[in-house]
Amino acid sequence: MESLEQALQRIEPVRQEFGQAAKRRWDSIAKPLGSLGLLEDAVVRIAGIQRRVDCDISRRAVTIFCADNGIVEEGVTQCGSEVTAVVAENFTKGDSCVCIMAELANAEIVPVDIGMNIDVPGMVRAKVRYGTENFLKEPAMSRQEVVKAVEEGIYLAEKLAEKGIQLTATGEMGIGNTTTSSAVAAVLTGRPVEEMTGRGAGLSDAGLKRKIEVIKQALEQHQPDPADVIGVLSAVGGLDIAGLAGMFLGCARRHIPVMVDGFISSVAALCAVRLCPAVQGYLLASHCSEEPAGELLLNELGLTPLIRAGMRLGEGTGAVAAIPLLDMAIEVYRKMSTFEEIEIEAYQPL
Amino acid sequence: MESLEQALQRIEPVRQEFGQAAKRRWDSIAKPLGSLGLLEDAVVRIAGIQRRVDCDISRRAVTIFCADNGIVEEGVTQCGSEVTAVVAENFTKGDSCVCIMAELANAEIVPVDIGMNIDVPGMVRAKVRYGTENFLKEPAMSRQEVVKAVEEGIYLAEKLAEKGIQLTATGEMGIGNTTTSSAVAAVLTGRPVEEMTGRGAGLSDAGLKRKIEVIKQALEQHQPDPADVIGVLSAVGGLDIAGLAGMFLGCARRHIPVMVDGFISSVAALCAVRLCPAVQGYLLASHCSEEPAGELLLNELGLTPLIRAGMRLGEGTGAVAAIPLLDMAIEVYRKMSTFEEIEIEAYQPL
Repeated sequence: MESLEQALQRIEPVRQEFGQAAKRRWDSIAKPLGSLGLLEDAVVRIAGIQRRVDCDISRRAVTIFCADNGIVEEGVTQCGSEVTAVVAENFTKGDSCVCIMAELANAEIVPVDIGMNIDVPGMVRAKVRYGTENFLKEPAMSRQEVVKAVEEGIYLAEKLAEKGIQLTATGEMGIGNTTTSSAVAAVLTGRPVEEMTGRGAGLSDAGLKRKIEVIKQALEQHQPDPADVIGVLSAVGGLDIAGLAGMFLGCARRHIPVMVDGFISSVAALCAVRLCPAVQGYLLASHCSEEPAGELLLNELGLTPLIRAGMRLGEGTGAVAAIPLLDMAIEVYRKMSTFEEIEIEAYQPL
Repeated sequence: MESLEQALQRIEPVRQEFGQAAKRRWDSIAKPLGSLGLLEDAVVRIAGIQRRVDCDISRRAVTIFCADNGIVEEGVTQCGSEVTAVVAENFTKGDSCVCIMAELANAEIVPVDIGMNIDVPGMVRAKVRYGTENFLKEPAMSRQEVVKAVEEGIYLAEKLAEKGIQLTATGEMGIGNTTTSSAVAAVLTGRPVEEMTGRGAGLSDAGLKRKIEVIKQALEQHQPDPADVIGVLSAVGGLDIAGLAGMFLGCARRHIPVMVDGFISSVAALCAVRLCPAVQGYLLASHCSEEPAGELLLNELGLTPLIRAGMRLGEGTGAVAAIPLLDMAIEVYRKMSTFEEIEIEAYQPL
């Protein structure tokens, strides 16, 4: 198993020359220049990531990192921690929203136990610990545990690469994980907690107020250093965020395009990019979460989403929803005739 | 063949009670309330349109209305009218962007000659005339021709309904049709021509200036009455816009959900809604065109797009891109477990 330290040293930048070649191919295709917009950009990006002009994303997986969060005992969520295991078990049976959507998108579901309170059969076991501590009282976990969770994510990406997976979508499940994500996002972006905190699965006004208060108190207490990502995750993070950050790093390490989903996934991507800026080139945007910080985090990541459908379900549903768009883009890119082939004069660039 | 007058009298409003029943079904599904955002709204809308709670869009078609525009001789486009037939012929061979995308979306391609300069074998023949006049010099066509084109659209929707088509996407092809669309949009919305006019397939600055000038001159000359849609289309419209307006009306007439594509399709939808406000309930938004008026027209139609990917290719590509999102929404809606399965089995529409 590669250590985080080793992985960080070995991640290479994307290869722009393949992206440029893909751009030239797009410009030769018989249609108005750039008229597929962000779909064209996505293919250019994938070419640079995969280091091949004939992109291929036909084998794909959705990794769903599941974990529990000690902060739930502070009343920051609508339902209890026991729901994490219920939903996670449904992932193993194909009975969840993301599973139903992934079947249409022809993507394999990979549910990962990175730190659930309860053991659920049928999941990839990568459990670092049984849930985190209540971060209002003490750090959520130790630095070593954060590093371990990140390394589990890197390791899983390695395994997916060995299986021939060519595109990864990121998902999560864990009651309380919008609270940990808001806390981490507030620290990493330096923005007010209020701006970074939403209703999650559907908190009341009073619940939202409580959630903001809890995060503020915890940050006051731990004073995490924004430059120390591992320290931030140790103080107020979650094992799912750490594992997902590892997945982003691992996909970059193995040249696999990796789709950011919504709020929690974006926070994890930001952690990965802060640990290793080259990771940014390996990210693909999918949708913009309805959580208040969704847009802001995508901007911070330098990504523009394809879909803006007001989704906020998690599980990787937004990322999976964007897969058919990528499929269509690549299919046009590969199959569509060029101006030369159909013998009409190319549209001129502006 | 039903006359426009008859169709307008026979279009019924959507049946809200089926939409409400679909909403209750969504609210019973085991996931955070409303967390699939606009995907849920789309299914609610489809239920109201189809008058059934168990929505079904498995049989779908993309209708592509092709026509030529006399205004092209004023130098408002990058390429000549001959390109319309070249691309239309490619539709019949499956070699165009929308065909490649529609294959993945499992949608049948229906290319329609509503007024091309050249006859192309393999298209649905609905030709009203061989292209329009140069509307800078005289009206684009007669009122009778506009009505005929609209009726051809209505008739085609009728044929699709008979074939069992359950969802229609709207597309078009016709060199010069962003010019006609901008002219019609400026009149119907009462907004400045500059705001409604873009670069189409990729005009230069000088070309864009010329396009705006030509539209302004024509509107000055014809002074079309915004309340008289047929008159507006006769003065500065295109046969594709008129045919598409008929398709929107015809789908409403036959209770078929109909997807708006980009700029030209939105203008046609607006024509249809102005002729018969109840048509609005039958429209489904897909994407927001990169043409400057894209957003504005969707607002005018009261629609929110799912996709914002900066696309501006036409042919129905934006609408087709959204089909897999609707499929995913309906699949979750139909298959996902509910909080209380028993209640669902007993569940009846009002």
